[in-house]
Amino acid sequence: MKKEQFISMQMEGSVSLPAVLLLNYPKLGLLEPEMILLLQVQLFIQQGNPFPTPDELSGRMSSSSPDCSMMLRGLIQRGFLKIEEQEVGYEKYTLEPLWDKLFRFLTVPEQQECEPEITDE
Amino acid sequence: MKKEQFISMQMEGSVSLPAVLLLNYPKLGLLEPEMILLLQVQLFIQQGNPFPTPDELSGRMSSSSPDCSMMLRGLIQRGFLKIEEQEVGYEKYTLEPLWDKLFRFLTVPEQQECEPEITDE
Amino acid sequence: MKKEQFISMQMEGSVSLPAVLLLNYPKLGLLEPEMILLLQVQLFIQQGNPFPTPDELSGRMSSSSPDCSMMLRGLIQRGFLKIEEQEVGYEKYTLEPLWDKLFRFLTVPEQQECEPEITDE
Amino acid sequence: MKKEQFISMQMEGSVSLPAVLLLNYPKLGLLEPEMILLLQVQLFIQQGNPFPTPDELSGRMSSSSPDCSMMLRGLIQRGFLKIEEQEVGYEKYTLEPLWDKLFRFLTVPEQQECEPEITDE
Repeated sequence: MKKEQFISMQMEGSVSLPAVLLLNYPKLGLLEPEMILLLQVQLFIQQGNPFPTPDELSGRMSSSSPDCSMMLRGLIQRGFLKIEEQEVGYEKYTLEPLWDKLFRFLTVPEQQECEPEITDE
Repeated sequence: MKKEQFISMQMEGSVSLPAVLLLNYPKLGLLEPEMILLLQVQLFIQQGNPFPTPDELSGRMSSSSPDCSMMLRGLIQRGFLKIEEQEVGYEKYTLEPLWDKLFRFLTVPEQQECEPEITDE
Repeated sequence: MKKEQFISMQMEGSVSLPAVLLLNYPKLGLLEPEMILLLQVQLFIQQGNPFPTPDELSGRMSSSSPDCSMMLRGLIQRGFLKIEEQEVGYEKYTLEPLWDKLFRFLTVPEQQECEPEITDE
Repeated sequence: MKKEQFISMQMEGSVSLPAVLLLNYPKLGLLEPEMILLLQVQLFIQQGNPFPTPDELSGRMSSSSPDCSMMLRGLIQRGFLKIEEQEVGYEKYTLEPLWDKLFRFLTVPEQQECEPEITDE
């Protein structure tokens, strides 16, 4: 491997996937291609392109551009991904809803423990 | 979120996915569920269980146990995953073949640059 | 770079340092050499050696073995690191107290917001 | 921990430190506070501020602003860090020289193996 390749590999860095997400994404209702699509969106954001097109995403996945488009729409509708307006006319994706969902998933059992059902008979 | 949950989340840590792999896994011939399965294997290894069963893998994925079993077999046959004998009678998975494949993928164009086609006229 | 080096580099992986810790370790009372020592301990744990000696730690740092020894003692006394008995006679380090401290640091302001000081006049 | 804190913690993400760097930074000639300073620079870059001031760096470290300033200068002079002009008048740090140094460190023994000293007298 040449020096230039090694350097660009290190500069590109890596995407860090919290174990707690890898352990629980199916329970959140995510399929594997959707999980990977979210990682790709995160990598695009890290690389300074916060609003990749379905074409750009498809170029890094084994899914076609229309399939990526459909997955993006599904992830937005089911509350895993959101489009934000950065400045007028500039949009960007944010994974905030994913972390919101994960937090609520992780803390629901906790609340159930704390607040036992009160059955008054 | 309770303290205990936060601590166990930090202790579980995260799986680091090099950008160069996320950018190129489809060109290596991997599908998204296979890419995630390899990450799950890596997380099991990190957690001290280097030979998870199809059942254990299926419990963290949206694929059934027979599907995980088939994927594992396919990954081994196509040279992305290997079973090694740790000590007599104890087996473990290793992702070594995946990194081998990635290295050869990354360096092939390099070699082509170094060794220009010889056209004999 | 040779293939074997690339593979072993990928197999060794990386240590993931949460931004929230990198942003706040000085406020927790940690100095830079101590922060790095904790990362070295974590890497040793990941590599299957959960109880590295001061000598082994010193071999990867710019601090001498007695300095590493003193830092370890200080980290244990000030509640950033703990020694646990794995099985009888086998000890290991755990970073649990670090995450405990971080959690309490992050949530104190929160509690202060929720529970305003009561001044009784 | 409140939901907002958890979300912002996940959005801030983490800095990934390759094991090969953590194992070898002293051999490259780096001290622990310098290693952490480079990680802080990388985190600032990830957060969209590619040219943090000594003051900003000092705010996240246990070193004073003049000390950070001196460390930055030392890292640039010894070839671990570089200032690049992004666009006219806008400067940014790049860790490219660090990875360059690491590559050369890792591959020197390799070349020595490949090209044994020829002493023909």
